[in-house]
Amino acid sequence: MTVGERGEHALIEWLRRHLPAPGPDVVVGIGDDAAVLRPPRGTLLVQTTDALVDGVHVDARLLSPDAIGRRAVAVNLSDLAAMGATPDWLLLSLVLPAGLDVQAFEALVTGAGAEARRWGAAVVGGNLTQTSGPLVVDVTATGSVRPRRLLRRDTARAGDELWLTGAAGGAAAGLAMLRAGVSDGDAATVAAYATPTPRLREARALAREGAARAAIDVSDGLADAVRQLASASGLGARLDAAALPIAPGLARLCAARGDDPLPMALASDDYELLVAVPPKAGKRLRAARASFATPFTRIGVLTAAAEIAMTRDGVTVPLPEGFEHFVGTR
Amino acid sequence: MTVGERGEHALIEWLRRHLPAPGPDVVVGIGDDAAVLRPPRGTLLVQTTDALVDGVHVDARLLSPDAIGRRAVAVNLSDLAAMGATPDWLLLSLVLPAGLDVQAFEALVTGAGAEARRWGAAVVGGNLTQTSGPLVVDVTATGSVRPRRLLRRDTARAGDELWLTGAAGGAAAGLAMLRAGVSDGDAATVAAYATPTPRLREARALAREGAARAAIDVSDGLADAVRQLASASGLGARLDAAALPIAPGLARLCAARGDDPLPMALASDDYELLVAVPPKAGKRLRAARASFATPFTRIGVLTAAAEIAMTRDGVTVPLPEGFEHFVGTR
Repeated sequence: MTVGERGEHALIEWLRRHLPAPGPDVVVGIGDDAAVLRPPRGTLLVQTTDALVDGVHVDARLLSPDAIGRRAVAVNLSDLAAMGATPDWLLLSLVLPAGLDVQAFEALVTGAGAEARRWGAAVVGGNLTQTSGPLVVDVTATGSVRPRRLLRRDTARAGDELWLTGAAGGAAAGLAMLRAGVSDGDAATVAAYATPTPRLREARALAREGAARAAIDVSDGLADAVRQLASASGLGARLDAAALPIAPGLARLCAARGDDPLPMALASDDYELLVAVPPKAGKRLRAARASFATPFTRIGVLTAAAEIAMTRDGVTVPLPEGFEHFVGTR
Repeated sequence: MTVGERGEHALIEWLRRHLPAPGPDVVVGIGDDAAVLRPPRGTLLVQTTDALVDGVHVDARLLSPDAIGRRAVAVNLSDLAAMGATPDWLLLSLVLPAGLDVQAFEALVTGAGAEARRWGAAVVGGNLTQTSGPLVVDVTATGSVRPRRLLRRDTARAGDELWLTGAAGGAAAGLAMLRAGVSDGDAATVAAYATPTPRLREARALAREGAARAAIDVSDGLADAVRQLASASGLGARLDAAALPIAPGLARLCAARGDDPLPMALASDDYELLVAVPPKAGKRLRAARASFATPFTRIGVLTAAAEIAMTRDGVTVPLPEGFEHFVGTR
């Protein structure tokens, strides 16, 4: 049976029954004209929206509906992480081809709900509509942050060090392996692309300990993130190519092909965090890192000079351009 | 030039420069990983999302990009109105065909921004992506309401009267006229479809004076709204067909064609409010109505018996089924 045959009201009724029950902060959940929510006291709200379009950001022939639902939520939570926020509520706006299988719909929503619950957030509403075009999963995430723990991207200073959570290039390697049909046995690399882990815990620990002066997530590739963070703060940046932690999956893939992993590592949409750490934050940094096991690596520095550069084998070159979701198709 | 040629970063830069500047409640607006907002004290948040898909809810051959932007915002504000809320912040998630003209993009965003500003709300963020399919304009609206002034749809009681803002059928008539190419000279009817007016002022006045016990917006037709409100409150309903205020444009259209206007009036997505008014609210109702000029008409009653019926010419019949956006295409 397709979602077009099932009909909107029946699909919404299924959602109401199967999504995880929200907490007491949700005064009115799914089923009214809008959700009604009680914001935590003394916090600012943090709000973002990000859409996955089949054929642009994801390929429904390569990813299961469950993974698409998880990924759609995770990429939004990554934006909240980049602000130091805690996720509270999600809205799920689904634009569905009428011929989509009801089981795929249910798996997608179940994946989204599970990813939300994993991070303590609830799906509190949304919208269903049909389309003659590809599937669109549009998520809005709202979270909260205490004013002093807010992380922005325009507050870095010259001399701040650039640190990266996790590794670079895992998502690009995972997608390449899925496309080539050679992903068996490397679940971690596939997951880096299919179901990235939002770095919520890491960001909150760094913000709490005062070890982060600015942050951005690596959703359009590391080169783009460096450029955006530096530019927003009125600075330049210099990356150290030798320090860059290359994801093991990408290293293997490139070794097998005889390719240089660096270009892929710089353009990969890894949903890691790029963090500006004050130069003398040693003790605060150690305190923050005690809260998480994720690798956290110094990869460069922010500079007063406006150039965005990379040093490799003793040679400094301009950092390659980033990736624009809007132009490219991956 | 198309939006695909212009590219995501340039389009976002245009948005930042051209959208109305937000107020002091917006700590971080467009340009970071997420928006940061200061919620009004002592209020609940009210949040909704609703998407317009070209070819499903709107037809870009019939509506200008400006009207599509306005309508996308208005239908979301209508959901906030139905909860008695005041709109604060909007996110604009645009899924754009790569071949869309940049001027159309700019007009759409300008229309959305103007409609937001008209009601005191600001566009604080969003997302741009491309698609191989039709245009999708997905808006998330967040507002606020004092707990005692919240309007739900599940709190009506048997004996409450059903009242309707405005008239029924204007949107259906406006769309029919646009499709037939006979809309010249009837701007009010076209506007009822193209750029509906969210009934924010009316809802707030009714909630403030305690003249509304429940409310819902008429986004899927009046018959559907009656059914949803009654069902959510565990009640039945009886409409009085003779009392129903038929939109003048629909009356004219149907008179010219020799059609019965009632079926179209019951299925028209008018974005009016259907309100449950306590039976002895006379004084409170008068106080509320002093705040707005919009017609407000008693059209029926909520009943303890579960039937959803309509009385016409002395005969009581079941109310026709409503319209499901998901199944139908208009």
